Amino acid sequence: MTTQEVAEKVVELVRKQAWHKAIDTLYDKDVVSVEARSSDGDSPEKRGIDEVRGKTDWWVNAMEVHSFKANGPFVAHERFVVQYDADVTDKNSKKRMQLSEVGVYTVKNGKIVREEFLPFTGKT
Amino acid sequence: MTTQEVAEKVVELVRKQAWHKAIDTLYDKDVVSVEARSSDGDSPEKRGIDEVRGKTDWWVNAMEVHSFKANGPFVAHERFVVQYDADVTDKNSKKRMQLSEVGVYTVKNGKIVREEFLPFTGKT
Repeated sequence: MTTQEVAEKVVELVRKQAWHKAIDTLYDKDVVSVEARSSDGDSPEKRGIDEVRGKTDWWVNAMEVHSFKANGPFVAHERFVVQYDADVTDKNSKKRMQLSEVGVYTVKNGKIVREEFLPFTGKT
Repeated sequence: MTTQEVAEKVVELVRKQAWHKAIDTLYDKDVVSVEARSSDGDSPEKRGIDEVRGKTDWWVNAMEVHSFKANGPFVAHERFVVQYDADVTDKNSKKRMQLSEVGVYTVKNGKIVREEFLPFTGKT
């Protein structure tokens, strides 16, 4: 798949909240996934598809998702960006949160080899 | 400056359309700037602050800017993203265009060392 095709698939699957299908079909086994901060006190960088699956399992178990919007993709060369706006409740703390962030993805040989998530830090 | 501080300055200066001040104060002399496509048949990759200034001069001379909106920044580690929506008229062809893209920036030692521009390629 081209970068554009991978990017369109990410947007389609995120809108369906089909997180596991996205990982199984679009991610390289050696993918590196970087968060701004870790949610569990570990490194913000996860390495390999099994660690990324673990992060996804944590997310699905921890969050009640009220809405999850994806804006994009924005595509050039091996890179694409998708902007996300999510409205979720942390099941543990019962705290409802509005999250706004972008994902910056790198594609090689038709698979996602790197993703970075950057939260909105501007003035609202 | 931290990545967050550089990112906030980019948003502030872009909103003022202060392109040259942004380059003079925030860019590393060896900056690499990558477009999705080149506007002049040259390489989409410009190297060094003089080539980036040349691209900016071309933009300022070629476009009448009706509005230029910046959404962001989104920041993590050495990277930040700003989403742009511009309404411009190409002075030569008189064609009015709505442009939507993101800039993905990399900061080292308080200066922008790389920027990549990715146009919106989703369904509208």
